[in-house]
Amino acid sequence: MGDEKLGMTAEEFRKYGKALVDWIADYHERIETYPVMSQARPGQVRAALPPSAPQTGESFDAMLRDVDKLIVPAVTHWQSPNFFGYFPCNASFPSILGDLLSSGLGVQGMLWATSPACTELETHVLDWLAQMLALPKAFFSSRSGGGVIQDTASSSSLCAVLAGRERATNYLSNKQGCDGRLVAYTSSQAHSSIEKAVRIAGLGDSNLRLIEVDENFAIRPDALATAIKEDRAAGRVPCFVCATVGTTSSNAMDPVREIGKICREHGVWLHVDAAMSGTAALCPEFRKFQDGLELADSYCFNPHKWMFTNFDCDCFYVADRKALIQTLSVLPEYLRNKATESGSVIDYRDWHIPLGRRFRALKLWFVIRSFGVEGLQAKVRRHVELAQKFASWVREDKDFELAAPAPLNLVSFRHRRGDKLNQAIMDRVNQSGDLFFTHTRLRDKLTLRMSIGQTNTELQHVERAWRRIKEEAGALTRSAQG
Amino acid sequence: MGDEKLGMTAEEFRKYGKALVDWIADYHERIETYPVMSQARPGQVRAALPPSAPQTGESFDAMLRDVDKLIVPAVTHWQSPNFFGYFPCNASFPSILGDLLSSGLGVQGMLWATSPACTELETHVLDWLAQMLALPKAFFSSRSGGGVIQDTASSSSLCAVLAGRERATNYLSNKQGCDGRLVAYTSSQAHSSIEKAVRIAGLGDSNLRLIEVDENFAIRPDALATAIKEDRAAGRVPCFVCATVGTTSSNAMDPVREIGKICREHGVWLHVDAAMSGTAALCPEFRKFQDGLELADSYCFNPHKWMFTNFDCDCFYVADRKALIQTLSVLPEYLRNKATESGSVIDYRDWHIPLGRRFRALKLWFVIRSFGVEGLQAKVRRHVELAQKFASWVREDKDFELAAPAPLNLVSFRHRRGDKLNQAIMDRVNQSGDLFFTHTRLRDKLTLRMSIGQTNTELQHVERAWRRIKEEAGALTRSAQG
Repeated sequence: MGDEKLGMTAEEFRKYGKALVDWIADYHERIETYPVMSQARPGQVRAALPPSAPQTGESFDAMLRDVDKLIVPAVTHWQSPNFFGYFPCNASFPSILGDLLSSGLGVQGMLWATSPACTELETHVLDWLAQMLALPKAFFSSRSGGGVIQDTASSSSLCAVLAGRERATNYLSNKQGCDGRLVAYTSSQAHSSIEKAVRIAGLGDSNLRLIEVDENFAIRPDALATAIKEDRAAGRVPCFVCATVGTTSSNAMDPVREIGKICREHGVWLHVDAAMSGTAALCPEFRKFQDGLELADSYCFNPHKWMFTNFDCDCFYVADRKALIQTLSVLPEYLRNKATESGSVIDYRDWHIPLGRRFRALKLWFVIRSFGVEGLQAKVRRHVELAQKFASWVREDKDFELAAPAPLNLVSFRHRRGDKLNQAIMDRVNQSGDLFFTHTRLRDKLTLRMSIGQTNTELQHVERAWRRIKEEAGALTRSAQG
Repeated sequence: MGDEKLGMTAEEFRKYGKALVDWIADYHERIETYPVMSQARPGQVRAALPPSAPQTGESFDAMLRDVDKLIVPAVTHWQSPNFFGYFPCNASFPSILGDLLSSGLGVQGMLWATSPACTELETHVLDWLAQMLALPKAFFSSRSGGGVIQDTASSSSLCAVLAGRERATNYLSNKQGCDGRLVAYTSSQAHSSIEKAVRIAGLGDSNLRLIEVDENFAIRPDALATAIKEDRAAGRVPCFVCATVGTTSSNAMDPVREIGKICREHGVWLHVDAAMSGTAALCPEFRKFQDGLELADSYCFNPHKWMFTNFDCDCFYVADRKALIQTLSVLPEYLRNKATESGSVIDYRDWHIPLGRRFRALKLWFVIRSFGVEGLQAKVRRHVELAQKFASWVREDKDFELAAPAPLNLVSFRHRRGDKLNQAIMDRVNQSGDLFFTHTRLRDKLTLRMSIGQTNTELQHVERAWRRIKEEAGALTRSAQG
């Protein structure tokens, strides 16, 4: 890549690459000085951009100036320790470097043969992770299963629905299409990606049963069993159940063992979605939430949420890799090769929707080796401790209440005076730029969520968040009374 | 990210980040010294890795040493100018920097509100590209359509199949599931991802008609029209056609205008897959292959193949964004926000399968601005010129023949003495490490493919490739005679 006409010489890359490394370090060092939530108006960025691409090349300096001027003011700072919205999407320096190396090597790992290291490092690091999380033996590549990196839990869920669909129909749905009899189940609190997957897979969302939950927003196994039995009695074909370890709304924990027993009894594929909370299993004291996981057919969690590995990195495990491969494999002539035919290698293209894939295992490898198991555990414990502290402040406050249990690092809470005030508190705090948090609805009440998992969040940030929420609540109730 | 326990301080990031930038520049400067195809054996990488993750953190130096020792020898060098396999997956220095910035900012752009710049820059740059490629007006965001970055053409095809499925059933398949009556069409030469998408969407591959092709491997419109009419007469519901601009096997060009007319007549969704060849439309002289594109409902091409933007970057355009959004949108409470409700912004989560998304527009923006339109055009013209030269050498050779027309930068050719010799030539050349190329089958004959599109491929590389192929063919035929 040494030709000047190519946009950038190797020498320029050295120079600008180093400048960009400094820019990123500077950005992270000053990240708390930005308003967390972007204050950009719709159309603001586009209005500042030229209507057409330049005819001739521009300098990197000009581009980096535009990043400062146009881009930074119009991003929400997900890596700020004052970001408490949604679920975290955290990153770390070793992860950024792993991703840079992936871009620099530029290999495409659709087949083992197209870059053996891209496949083997991924299989290996996902086995490491299975050990680190104490996942059931079947999920290891040395047994019947194995893990693969997907972009998001949405894609993992889709693959799980498809594998369940195919297994339930003896792999005939791939051939003949769906016939309207297949049924899927999850809780009314499951992530919207399950509904999306069920639609995509051709089951139809009228064939998705949203099972009712108990007082803690966890699925009621008796209701699940009843629904499956009713569908079978009506001639329908139950094919897929999704249990959630840590729902998005309130971090509710579905009882995996009880659900697993029901699935085994009826031969239904059980997928366990632990997108955010799965990381907690790094610590033995938090593994209780995955009790019964050996009864699941597939499992996923996202290191890009709470394990300091930048987006995208979802780890998807199956207990029987043959079922997944049989579901997703299509082998055209132009991809045939000796390694594949030998049967001694993994071709990850058969483990997910896309054909091509980048070398994402590098960032996971760098993160695990840089932090070490103990370093990761320490971070997770710290975040849980901070969330528990926040929950205790809510519990002790006369104006606020907890809206759900806080088993790990998400606190669902609300002011006792109703939706309108809660909405106003959230809007005012977020608009101030001091921190950013988001909401959900639980039992039809607007509920605030403090999601604590950004890499650098510490006590001071959580303390200030609570103080700012209390301040705005106080100001709003006083002005209502005044 | 300044805590030492976090695996890496900001100071260390500055130091190691700069070292890694130099490492990448060095890698690209010496890339021609590596055997292009990895010579690793199955299991080689895993055997060299420790069975468990380290308990405590390791230094970045140790990791980078392992990259040199374990990873580099076990990758196939896709960025080598001697890589002629599959389709290219090319990169460039500005693209690597754009991706680094994306990792460094670490924003997640699922909604406009979660980082306005991530959405607006993407919409804007995809409008730039639509101008640069002279795409039909309907594909612009200022009209009824717009573009979005997906990971791969496989995912774009799936979204197109789903939108076609829903439009054909008045958006009822999402609700009720597929009923076995929906039919899709593509050519027998289309990419395997179409078959995969049709399976995933619940249509079943027995409902995918692989339409026969003409002598140039392009779809026969008369055969397509007949198939659609027969299906309609039988009470089935044609919902999706995929035309290919540049098939993977032989770069065949389906006649988009004729196919488009048939699709309009029958109200069937037309998707045009130009994954590799779409880039050629940067040059006015190559736009003839997309004649009739205004009759298409969706279109995709991959800057990560032939536009110097590293994987993953597929650009997917629709003429009617409402149809796509209605197909893919599911809105849970925890994602509701004022900007979405105002209707004045794009939320890209409704334009693809995953919910989360990284800031991929940065690398495309950097590439376009660094090269400029003219710089990109010059590269494309150069690659086409090199391929045409290679084709002329084949044409003039008494032992070899062209297996298909070479309209752009892919040459399909073979030795006249049959499959066994062609396989042996390919195996020996690839094993030598001097270059890497792959094969397909055309009219049931093993066919070699020279795919010319790596960023830095120049005449000398193509000349040597031909010389090495001729040498091995000569040695093999002599030893067979001796």
